[in-house]
Amino acid sequence: MSVFTPVSESQLAAWLKNYSVGALAALEPIAAGIENTNYFVTTSQGRYVLTLFERLPAAELPFYLELMAHLARHGIPCPAPMADLADCYLSSLNGKPAALVTRLQGKSIEHPGTAECSELGALLARMHLAGRSYAGYLENPRGAKWWRLAAREVRPFLDAERAGLLEEEMRFQSQHRFPDLPRGAVHADLFRDNALFEGGRISGVIDFYFAGVECFVFDVAVCVNDWCLRDPASDRRLEEPRILALLGAYHAVRPLTGPERDAWPVMLRAAALRFWLSRLFDKHLPRPGELVRVHDPEHFRELLALRAAPGAPAPWIA
Amino acid sequence: MSVFTPVSESQLAAWLKNYSVGALAALEPIAAGIENTNYFVTTSQGRYVLTLFERLPAAELPFYLELMAHLARHGIPCPAPMADLADCYLSSLNGKPAALVTRLQGKSIEHPGTAECSELGALLARMHLAGRSYAGYLENPRGAKWWRLAAREVRPFLDAERAGLLEEEMRFQSQHRFPDLPRGAVHADLFRDNALFEGGRISGVIDFYFAGVECFVFDVAVCVNDWCLRDPASDRRLEEPRILALLGAYHAVRPLTGPERDAWPVMLRAAALRFWLSRLFDKHLPRPGELVRVHDPEHFRELLALRAAPGAPAPWIA
Repeated sequence: MSVFTPVSESQLAAWLKNYSVGALAALEPIAAGIENTNYFVTTSQGRYVLTLFERLPAAELPFYLELMAHLARHGIPCPAPMADLADCYLSSLNGKPAALVTRLQGKSIEHPGTAECSELGALLARMHLAGRSYAGYLENPRGAKWWRLAAREVRPFLDAERAGLLEEEMRFQSQHRFPDLPRGAVHADLFRDNALFEGGRISGVIDFYFAGVECFVFDVAVCVNDWCLRDPASDRRLEEPRILALLGAYHAVRPLTGPERDAWPVMLRAAALRFWLSRLFDKHLPRPGELVRVHDPEHFRELLALRAAPGAPAPWIA
Repeated sequence: MSVFTPVSESQLAAWLKNYSVGALAALEPIAAGIENTNYFVTTSQGRYVLTLFERLPAAELPFYLELMAHLARHGIPCPAPMADLADCYLSSLNGKPAALVTRLQGKSIEHPGTAECSELGALLARMHLAGRSYAGYLENPRGAKWWRLAAREVRPFLDAERAGLLEEEMRFQSQHRFPDLPRGAVHADLFRDNALFEGGRISGVIDFYFAGVECFVFDVAVCVNDWCLRDPASDRRLEEPRILALLGAYHAVRPLTGPERDAWPVMLRAAALRFWLSRLFDKHLPRPGELVRVHDPEHFRELLALRAAPGAPAPWIA
């Protein structure tokens, strides 16, 4: 259950008078989602998602909404925020910041093959290229600065082996920073459940609420660490053909550079570290009243250990 | 045939590298259209219309493209221009100004009933409300100023009866101006063939290249003069139930005002005059090399005579 702030049909019908999207036809709560209240909204004009922001800092919301609007008008199949009659994407409903975005067709895929990884790679590159002209700026809120904060907070909860892995990786990453890699506004959380497919093609990329400005190749590593595992449930080693499909399709749209290749093994580790830390944090330091279904941090602990092992493979296109 | 400037697949594929819409899959010339070169374009991501602008003043193109973008992000089902990697809607292809817009589903309806007129009325009102926050400004290029120019040019081609009708109407309109009516950016050419329907709902409004800032109620009158005739081919009298359906649905979204009601009979005449003049102009003063299929001006001459007759009905909601 992820409706933290209920919205009634009459409340929504009144609120929609501030928009040009037609009259309310149906309202349906969305069970998924752990940060916000979400509803499916159908009007005489179309299908939308209503989001009431429960946790995100209000000052950061325009970055996310404007980024989605920017990408949508570049042809990226992402939720397009609807502007209200005052020409704003961000509004307020039942005391919460709220926005209405288009609802995309398609379903996420649990077991992507090389074809789906190729689709993802091409779309990711198009998003990166389109994002370069986005004027908004928000440093990746789960970037290296946040790692240091989070590592300090979660360390007391770790056993010696895990504390050692974390300390070692934090040191390694601090010795391998890449300030000059190509960067821009990236999704930074494009796991399989945030991509929708229809008829074999990507029909949507959703949930931009971890987006920020970051190295493009870090965003690629986040994807590879989720899309290209031998078996996400039991074998976190990388499957080379899917990686090569993803990187190859990406490279055909936005050519990857030498420095990005050099950074690749470090980025795979960085992307594993980032999610290990956030899962440890969510598990050991839940926010009061939080209804989050805690993901097991061990998945990313094992993933990090595999990526950081001496001689660990980090497949890259020829 | 309305391809004035041919575009090859290889030319388009190269041009599309400036966009984030995916790789070219199909290119198909569009036979309809008399002002521009149009192609249907299918990419790995979606369906688009490519337009090369052959006639429109280059300085006015941003007004149209930005208006479509503005309305699209307010939820109006109109072609949404795609921004290129330089973040521009307007580009250049084979020496012509060019733009890529989304292709909408649906088909136009030749014989709308009250249900379709009601759909149109509601959408028109939503467009008008959404258009009020549009910052662009272009005076209706076929407004009263243009009427005076056009009337002077076409008068030599008219017989005495038609010259008399024109002179009389020009005098009448000059005595009935409404500078204080609610106004904003309007379509101004929303004939039946510029609205697409799917499953009984309006799925698209297209062809914004006569848009401009004008009284909202003039835009309504343009629609009524095309959508609410007893028989467009043989009986240009108004059919009241369809007018009331259109106005009623409009009024429910954007309440019509007393001054708009007072202006209504004049607006029906003004909307008839505007198209009579442009059809006379296109017939008698074709531009060199023009391939336009000339519409018969007599349709609007008769329509104007009916609207201007003493005691002519001008149905309005109670």
